[in-house]
Order: sequence, then C-alpha cells, then structure tokens
Amino acid sequence: MQPKSPSHSRTIMTDLVLPSETNPLNNLFGGELLARMDRAASIAARRHCRRITVTASVNHVAFNHPVPLGSVLTVEAAVSRAFNTSMEIYIDVWMEDRHNRNRSKANEAIYTFVAVDDSGIPTKVPPLVPETDLEKERFEGALRRKQLSLILAKRMKPSEATELKALFMGKSPN
Amino acid sequence: MQPKSPSHSRTIMTDLVLPSETNPLNNLFGGELLARMDRAASIAARRHCRRITVTASVNHVAFNHPVPLGSVLTVEAAVSRAFNTSMEIYIDVWMEDRHNRNRSKANEAIYTFVAVDDSGIPTKVPPLVPETDLEKERFEGALRRKQLSLILAKRMKPSEATELKALFMGKSPN
Amino acid sequence: MQPKSPSHSRTIMTDLVLPSETNPLNNLFGGELLARMDRAASIAARRHCRRITVTASVNHVAFNHPVPLGSVLTVEAAVSRAFNTSMEIYIDVWMEDRHNRNRSKANEAIYTFVAVDDSGIPTKVPPLVPETDLEKERFEGALRRKQLSLILAKRMKPSEATELKALFMGKSPN
Amino acid sequence: MQPKSPSHSRTIMTDLVLPSETNPLNNLFGGELLARMDRAASIAARRHCRRITVTASVNHVAFNHPVPLGSVLTVEAAVSRAFNTSMEIYIDVWMEDRHNRNRSKANEAIYTFVAVDDSGIPTKVPPLVPETDLEKERFEGALRRKQLSLILAKRMKPSEATELKALFMGKSPN
Amino acid sequence: MQPKSPSHSRTIMTDLVLPSETNPLNNLFGGELLARMDRAASIAARRHCRRITVTASVNHVAFNHPVPLGSVLTVEAAVSRAFNTSMEIYIDVWMEDRHNRNRSKANEAIYTFVAVDDSGIPTKVPPLVPETDLEKERFEGALRRKQLSLILAKRMKPSEATELKALFMGKSPN
Amino acid sequence: MQPKSPSHSRTIMTDLVLPSETNPLNNLFGGELLARMDRAASIAARRHCRRITVTASVNHVAFNHPVPLGSVLTVEAAVSRAFNTSMEIYIDVWMEDRHNRNRSKANEAIYTFVAVDDSGIPTKVPPLVPETDLEKERFEGALRRKQLSLILAKRMKPSEATELKALFMGKSPN
Repeated sequence: MQPKSPSHSRTIMTDLVLPSETNPLNNLFGGELLARMDRAASIAARRHCRRITVTASVNHVAFNHPVPLGSVLTVEAAVSRAFNTSMEIYIDVWMEDRHNRNRSKANEAIYTFVAVDDSGIPTKVPPLVPETDLEKERFEGALRRKQLSLILAKRMKPSEATELKALFMGKSPN
Repeated sequence: MQPKSPSHSRTIMTDLVLPSETNPLNNLFGGELLARMDRAASIAARRHCRRITVTASVNHVAFNHPVPLGSVLTVEAAVSRAFNTSMEIYIDVWMEDRHNRNRSKANEAIYTFVAVDDSGIPTKVPPLVPETDLEKERFEGALRRKQLSLILAKRMKPSEATELKALFMGKSPN
Repeated sequence: MQPKSPSHSRTIMTDLVLPSETNPLNNLFGGELLARMDRAASIAARRHCRRITVTASVNHVAFNHPVPLGSVLTVEAAVSRAFNTSMEIYIDVWMEDRHNRNRSKANEAIYTFVAVDDSGIPTKVPPLVPETDLEKERFEGALRRKQLSLILAKRMKPSEATELKALFMGKSPN
Repeated sequence: MQPKSPSHSRTIMTDLVLPSETNPLNNLFGGELLARMDRAASIAARRHCRRITVTASVNHVAFNHPVPLGSVLTVEAAVSRAFNTSMEIYIDVWMEDRHNRNRSKANEAIYTFVAVDDSGIPTKVPPLVPETDLEKERFEGALRRKQLSLILAKRMKPSEATELKALFMGKSPN
Repeated sequence: MQPKSPSHSRTIMTDLVLPSETNPLNNLFGGELLARMDRAASIAARRHCRRITVTASVNHVAFNHPVPLGSVLTVEAAVSRAFNTSMEIYIDVWMEDRHNRNRSKANEAIYTFVAVDDSGIPTKVPPLVPETDLEKERFEGALRRKQLSLILAKRMKPSEATELKALFMGKSPN
Repeated sequence: MQPKSPSHSRTIMTDLVLPSETNPLNNLFGGELLARMDRAASIAARRHCRRITVTASVNHVAFNHPVPLGSVLTVEAAVSRAFNTSMEIYIDVWMEDRHNRNRSKANEAIYTFVAVDDSGIPTKVPPLVPETDLEKERFEGALRRKQLSLILAKRMKPSEATELKALFMGKSPN
C-alpha cells in the first residue's frame, strides 16, 4: 500500500454554533463538540484508507475555552499515525467570535479509528509519512499515546509501556 | 454544604438509536454516543450541585461494542466524586438489541464537570459520600484519574502524581 | 407466555428541554412532550413483549404545568395492563427547574401499543401482573379506559360498556 | 370581538415523512404525528385569536392507518369552537403514497388551545361562527367533548355533564 | 397522458420559524427558506406526475423581506409549466408576524424538477393546462425562463434564445 | 478599509450526507445543498467584513450531479467581488464517493450577501482584490452577474446593462 501524508487526509469542517447546541450560558455543549470532532475525524480516516471507518477510542479531552453561540467553529482533522488497521487522528479546533477579528485555538483532541470492510472486519490501512515538524512531533507522540490507551483499556501491562515511561521522566505529552 | 450520595444524582436516559445517528454499517456514530453521555452527565452534575454545570474534560473512552440501529440505549450517569468546584461523573451505557432479550454493557465513560454561577465563575459543590462497594471503588479511583488528567493537561508534573504511580506498579485503573 | 411485572418494562427517559422545542413563552411545546412520551412508551411496550410495537392510541392528555426551557424532564413509562395483542402504557412526567430543588409532577398520560411481527401483523403479548398498590389501581382502571376508547372509536356501543358506567355513577377515573 | 369562521384559521401543513421519523416497520412514529398536529393546531389557534397560544389538552387519538416512509402527509387544522379563553381545534390528516394516486384519510384529532398574554395569563378569544354542515356538526360536538374533558380532568362531576349523556343514549361521538 | 391544472399540484406548507433556523438578527436563514421551498416544490412536482422527482435547477432568488423568529411561514407551490420530462414550479411565500394581523408576501421563487423512474432515468410528465390569468401569465413566462436557464448552463447559444430577446427589448420578466 | 483577498474569506465545510437529507433515490435533496451552501457562504461573507451578514440573493443554480447518501461533501466558499455594502460569494462543491478514490465537482453556485449592523442597516464592506487567474475571472464576471440580477429584480432596464450584452454577443457566462 502506498504511504500517504497527513495533508492527504486533512479535513476542514467549518460551521456556525446554533442555539440548539448551547447550554444555559449560551456556550457550545461539550458533547456537541465531541460529536463534530468525531464526524470530521471519521472523514479524515476514510480519506486516508478509502474504507468504512469506525471510532475505536477518544483520548482524554479538556474543554478550557467556552465557544459562544454564533461563533464560527473550524474543526481540522488529519491522520497523525497509521498502525496496522487503525489510525490516530489529531484534531485542532479554532473559533472566531463575531466581535473578535482573530481566530483562537478552542481545543485539541485525538481520536482513533479502525478501517473495516463491509461486514465490519478490520482491514489493513496504508502507512503514514509525516512531512512538517508538527506532523513529525505528533507522529512520534502517537506510539506513547497508544500504549497509554492500551493500559487504560487493560490490554497492556504498565511495565511493558516503554515509550510511556518518558511521560513519568518529566517529558510532557503532545 | 450537605453531602450527597451518588443515588441523589443518578440520571437515566433511555432512548432509541435512530437512522440519522448511524454510520454506513448501521451502527451508532461514536460522536453521537459521546454527545448523549455528555447530556446525561451534565444533568447528573446539576442534580448534585443545583448549579449551571459545564463540561471540563472527558477521560479516555474506548468503543468496543457497536450499537446497531434500532437498539434501545440506556445511559446511566452519577457523580462518582466531588472536588472543590468540580465533579467526576461515571457513566455506564447499556444496550438492548430487538432480537436479544438481555441487555448488555455497551460502554463506560468518565466526564468531569465544573459548577459555575450565572457569569461562568466556578463555585463550590457539596461533597459526595459513596455508599455501595462499586461507588466506593469509583470514588477511590477518581483521585488517580484526576492526577492523570492534570498531567495530560500539563498542569501537574508526573513526579508529583503520587496516586497515579499505582498505575505503573501493576494495579489496573478503574 | 411468562407473566411480567410493570417494573420489568419501566423506562426512564431523562433529558433537557432545548431551545428548538419551546414556544414563544419559552415553554416546551405540547407536541414535543407527546413525542417524547411516545418514544418512552414504545420502549416500555417493547421491553414487555420483545416485539416491534406500534402506537395504537393516546388517551386524553391535559397540559396543566408549563415546562420551561432548560428544565430537566423525566418521562417514566411502564406497562399498566396487557390485553391480547395490545398493552396499555402509563406515563408519569416529572420536571426539575434549575432554580427549584425539588422535582414536581408535570404530566400523566396513557398510550396503547400493539405488538406486531415483521410484516405488521398483531401478535400475542405476555400477561402483566401488577405488584404495588399503584400498579394494581392502574391495572383496574385500564379495562374502563379500554371501553371508553372503543366507544370513542365507535367500535363498542356505550350500553355495552359495563365498566365505564362506574364513571357516570360518581366514581372518578384514574 | 368580531366573530370568525373556521376558514379564517384553516392551516395546511404538507410535508414529507423522512427516515428519522419512522419506526422499524418504516412507518411514521405516532409521536411525530402528534407533534406535527400540535404545530399545525397551534398556528390555527393563533390565526383565530392573534395571541400566543398554548396547548391545553389533546383528546383521545387512535392510529389506525400506518403512514409509510416517503409519504406526503397533509395536516389540516381549523378552530371548531371558541369558548371564553380556549379554542377547540379539529385536525384532519391525509396521506398520499407515492404509488397510490389518491390521497386517503390517515387520521383525525382534536386539540384544545388557550390564548395567553405575554406573561402567560389566559385572555379572551373571538367567537367562532361555523358555516358548512361539517363545521356545524363539529361545533355542536365540541360542547360534549368539553364536558368529557372536564370529567377526565376531574373538574366536573359526570352527573352534571348533561350533553355527554347523549353519548350513553346510543348517539355516536363526532 | 391526461393534462392537469396547476390547482391539481398546489401544495401548501405552513409552519413556524424556530430558533435553530435563525441568524444573529433573529431572522430566518436564507438557506433554510431555500430548503423549505425545495421540499414544497418537490411535493408539487410529484403530485403532477406521480413519479419520483428530483431538483434540476433553481432560478435566481432575491431575499428582500426578513422573516422574524416566531413567524408563521406559508410556502405555496404549484406546477407552472410542464415540458417533456421536466416541470417548472412557481413558489409564493407568505409570512404572518404575531403582532401583524395581515399576511404579507415574503418571497417568490422558481424551481425546476425532473421526473425520474426508480433507476433515476427521466420519464415523460403530463402536460399542464393553466386556468386563471395568473397561471397563464406564469405559463407564458416559463419558456423565456427556460431559455435563460439553458444559456446560463451553457447549453443554448444566446442567439437562439428567441423568447428571451423580449427581455432585452424592454419587457420585464415575470 | 483595507482590501482583502479571496483567500482571506475562503471557508471549507466538509461533512457527510446523512439519511435524513436524502430523497427516495438516496441522493441529497437539492434544498439541503442550497442550505449548506448558504451557511458556508454566510461565513465567508462574515470573514471578509467582520459584520453580521444576511443572504441577499442566490443566482441560478443547476443540479447536474446527484450526491449519494454517505458521500463526503465539501462546500468551498470565498468572496469573489465586493461592492458597496454587498459581497458576491462564489461556491464550489466537491463530492467523494466511498468507492471512488477521486473527488469530483458536484456543483457551483453564486450567492450575494449584505453586511448589516446590529439593527439590520447595510454597512460598507472592504474592497476585494483578486489574486489568482480564476479569482480574477470570477471578479470580472461578477459585474455582469450583478446587472442580470438587477434586471431580474426589475431594478435595472435591460438596455442599461452594458456588461450583460456580452452575454448575447456569444460570450459564455462564468
């Protein structure tokens, strides 16, 4: 299978924040943002492998920046690393307030998708070749994140997570 | 503030899986499940503190069990630990296939919510007192999860996460 | 077929009242409440008989308590009596205002569902055995309500409705 | 206040039946039909009185004709009688199957709406003057239905319901 | 095929303008109006030919009258001319403000639909016979509009558009 | 006001085609595509002028390529010319079938938006400076399209439309 770059799968989903998606403070519900990111990530995964793709997991997501009603929200997703049948998708979220000329970072998230055939059986995906510095940094971090994910799912012993140990040696995660 | 038990905030959201929420394999989109869990968890958090509550973070979530179109999905959320202004919400998801008489576990997830006043400023929440064995186990695990969350958000050094070290000493997370 | 209790089919659907479901006074549309109750009742009916179920009728419903935007609304449905191929579902609706610590009764309604096979032909359902006093009272009332329903549908002569005559002898309906 | 005819408030809402509104047999959910009828009826009520109107009650509704996915559904609502601050709305529902050239009656329902001012206080509505034979028949029946409604809401004793007794003397309800 | 009049296909779609359909000025989004008109027009086209119908084109549409949140909007569509396999649909849109007793014209639009069989192949449609003066005027204008449409789609040379030349001889389009 | 390039306002809205947006042939409704394009175009217009923007008109749109259920649809909108208070937005629509590796052009459309202040009064917008050849070609065509639009709205006499005459001299429109 021919390797692909992150730009091949990059998916941009720009849309308004509407009244039925907001909480009593008139900010976007966290759950609505999770759903939009899932849709954008599923498209990125599909662009990478040209298969049906299903959400396998979502990494820890923090919501530090409320997104007000009427904002323009841009969800940008791209494959950050391909494994055997799964792909890590890195998602950047930007918002533009109507009164604020500049866009600002609203969130980041990392989803994992699996490629499946028509009966739902996992199938191989092409490798990913990162190009920019940021893409390389995310590519490197993906292995560490995968180990954490396996530990959290109780499918790997912490003692085997050699990459993850860097986390506890003082290096920050991506 | 008077302490409350998890049963005080327990929230049950049962509903059907409809066609517009499903992927090409006719299973529920991961993102739709994340959005439903967020809504149920926000209600549980509000029942605990009687304040406006906003999503602060979502722990790692794995999707191991596809939920077919037409299933009955039950999302059950309850506060598992209260901190100063935040609450951890533990969510259990059950599904019932039309042809399958018994319900089965579809998922688990952990969200954190913050209580805020009308201008969005965090405010104190009542303490939580766990009652059953499962509630006590989840209460204990919450501190370890909070440390992991702070590390992932780069707000705590791994070396300070004393509780989390248990994770790397061979004990599985809840 | 093995008899079942109302608790076997009890269905709880808790959710928020969102902006697109409210009228110009910012209260839930009556029609939206009818639709939510129908969904909860259809799940209760299906849990009782493990078949596809379709709405056969809705009894008279009064809307005495407006449900404001942002409320938490809990729809609780359970089979109250099983007939040959049909089931009466009794629905209690509760609301929690954000500023009001206690939940209050918002509504009651009674729907009838029919169990059908894959081609839509009615099929037998298991009997219902009420357990609590309230369940027994609702079970008793169901026969009287069924007669009223048949009369309103012009399928029974009022003179044959022996149970219903109690209504005109001074006894209040449930 | 100037009296108005039913044709003044007649409201026609024609729309398609879409996939997210249908049950596992691919027919319209009963609850969705109840919600559409409520919206059409609220517009008819508002056209009659030029006030905010809120649903007060729904009479018994039977669902005898399944409405398949892809049908064209026409909901036709008009005020059938005006009381002091409330209006009875009579609703006829027609469906057109794609393969069936003629439209057929899918349902009938009767809703009651109350006119309110901006703070939700009931206000007077104009009288209704029926014109056609069918309008006159529905106008006559409305008083009997109002008595039944008051009895079911436990606000009138059956012995006082003089009009309703006709129901038990062998005359069918409208 | 038996000719039909515009009244045979006339479709009336009355509904409220809800919060999730409005822009920051609390007026209906132009795009939502375009979508409602498309649904009404597709029903009118289907009523004329009793076939599946698909949107072929939309003529130039201007939005001169904002439609406020809470308005009652009536979309009225009817076939204005039938060609071989296509139909021109003329759409009139009316709005009623809650505080304004009279309805006013909100918009006009012209869509073209094509009748297709189950595999999407265009099929013949019955001729249209206009009856009223307005219907005749719209019928006449349809040919000129079709030529303009073909030119804009680069499928007719302007020099062949004999009818359209009237436009440039000082006569206004309908 | 500082001039801006089309790339400054370029808006990319990528999303899936879901079941509730499709017709009986399982293709996207024309009206849904019109609504998506309106949302993307309104964001592009707002990015150009940093004001509230409202749809003023939609040029003739033809639907030549059905977009199947499950496709990934990309709507790309950018300001193509700025006038005094209005902006022409040029929209390109691309689709990716799941089984088709390459994306193909699904549609083009041209909307006009007006910038308004908080009370809905039109306000001046910055000039647009096209950069690429395609942007320059679209910029040139915009004046001709504006004249056609004014004629169709009966606000300009055809004889005054000097630019538009090119259309009838054998030059194809953009």
